[in-house]
Amino acid sequence: MKIGWIGIGVMGSSMVKNLLSAGHECFIFTRTKSKAEALIEAGAIWKDSPAQVAENADIVGMIVAMPSDVESVTMGENGVLSTMKPGTILVDFTTSSPLLAKKIAQFANKKDISTLDAPVSGGDIGARNATLSIMVGGDKASFDKLDDFFNTLGKTIEYQGPAGAGQHTKMVNQILIATNMIGVCESLIYAEKAGLNPENVLKSVGSGAAASWSLSNLAPRIIKGDFEPGFFVEHFIKDMGIALTEAKAMGIELPGLDMSYNLYKKLADEMNMGRKGTQALYFALKK
Amino acid sequence: MKIGWIGIGVMGSSMVKNLLSAGHECFIFTRTKSKAEALIEAGAIWKDSPAQVAENADIVGMIVAMPSDVESVTMGENGVLSTMKPGTILVDFTTSSPLLAKKIAQFANKKDISTLDAPVSGGDIGARNATLSIMVGGDKASFDKLDDFFNTLGKTIEYQGPAGAGQHTKMVNQILIATNMIGVCESLIYAEKAGLNPENVLKSVGSGAAASWSLSNLAPRIIKGDFEPGFFVEHFIKDMGIALTEAKAMGIELPGLDMSYNLYKKLADEMNMGRKGTQALYFALKK
Repeated sequence: MKIGWIGIGVMGSSMVKNLLSAGHECFIFTRTKSKAEALIEAGAIWKDSPAQVAENADIVGMIVAMPSDVESVTMGENGVLSTMKPGTILVDFTTSSPLLAKKIAQFANKKDISTLDAPVSGGDIGARNATLSIMVGGDKASFDKLDDFFNTLGKTIEYQGPAGAGQHTKMVNQILIATNMIGVCESLIYAEKAGLNPENVLKSVGSGAAASWSLSNLAPRIIKGDFEPGFFVEHFIKDMGIALTEAKAMGIELPGLDMSYNLYKKLADEMNMGRKGTQALYFALKK
Repeated sequence: MKIGWIGIGVMGSSMVKNLLSAGHECFIFTRTKSKAEALIEAGAIWKDSPAQVAENADIVGMIVAMPSDVESVTMGENGVLSTMKPGTILVDFTTSSPLLAKKIAQFANKKDISTLDAPVSGGDIGARNATLSIMVGGDKASFDKLDDFFNTLGKTIEYQGPAGAGQHTKMVNQILIATNMIGVCESLIYAEKAGLNPENVLKSVGSGAAASWSLSNLAPRIIKGDFEPGFFVEHFIKDMGIALTEAKAMGIELPGLDMSYNLYKKLADEMNMGRKGTQALYFALKK
């Protein structure tokens, strides 16, 4: 198939690589052309704007940074929706606002273009090995058509409901991580202060009722003093901000998420650690 | 070996059963004799007080409810330490105060009795199948001597340091669970309000970076409306109270644990759900 793609970051580059390997023809655009060089060498075709990427594509995929980027790349001047043909499908893999996903769907549907919001989890490794969890909202018939496409990119592919439902599901994912990260950091701070050997403590608590992905994967990094990003603090703040906005609009209070958001904001704004990994929350909790 | 045992609740009865099966001679006492009947039929020997349980034992094990019970059963009148012989070992499996564990150790050591604080995680199933995680503090030489004893009762056996270190490790375990439970409940509240199908959402978020034991095991119960106790709210409040007291004594702040403790207190004191399972936290967060 002819696939257009916007956004060649850590995630996007691996995803396009997998699409090329599966034999698809890929037209690509990203803000910084140098990031696309390896893919161009691997056979991807460079285009100078989102509109040009989209004009001959059956499917347009995208994974960019912020909701504002999603908005301009889709509905903006030279956005993909200015050139996509009726009957084609737009798939946004960015973690973005459920409300924006609905807005894009309405905008696109008027042109007989269908949309899927399809945020992912699984990180750079998941993108590389095509083991991502992809949470999909939008037009069900289009979802069913893209079975092969999604399976080229991920492993756990779940349809979650109408436009925005994929984003809402990703928000559920981030709410879970947000609060658990507080516990992971507090538990290490307690362990150290109590004079325990944190590595040995993990042997006792790592596989029972206290077990979690964050504990197994991020606590060992904190113990080693490794705060390099697997997932950026500033991206996590963006996600939590979206979840809090949606929660407010729905009239629910999420005090744990709220606490985590404020701690991460402090970490980024006052402690200048926005480009560290999410495990740096440790510093916002340690006195 | 001759083993004395105090406390025949859900955990204690399975643990003594495993000791009997391994061929040990077991003397038992518990507050409510009727709870001991099945064990007596299985070969355990009933005694009328902790002191009598302990008088001929090489090892005394115990798992009771509250730190105040631990204190009276050990150092109180008719407590086990009134009759235990020099060279014998007291093992307390109760989740209790690290400070109390140190106090008991000092008291016992004067009589040449050594002590181990050895709280467990893994619940009723772990006790029955001898797959408990046992977190041990206290005299290292005694720990080494009890290798077979511990392996009869659990699977993950870790020595964590001097008296109190086992309890501190269990506190780490409870701190992790406390904060994560907020996230599990908030994520379900968000999912429902957003119109998602929570069971389907778990398929997307259950095995990636948001994964945790509590999510896999307790979220499905919340969705089904099952709030029966795997672990009692009131016991969890006891544990978190100990952790907060210790944290305060060590001069550290744990805002996530604090939030969880207050939500669970509200659940028990204002909403009368102290005898529900910890997953009932859902009700304290849902408006």
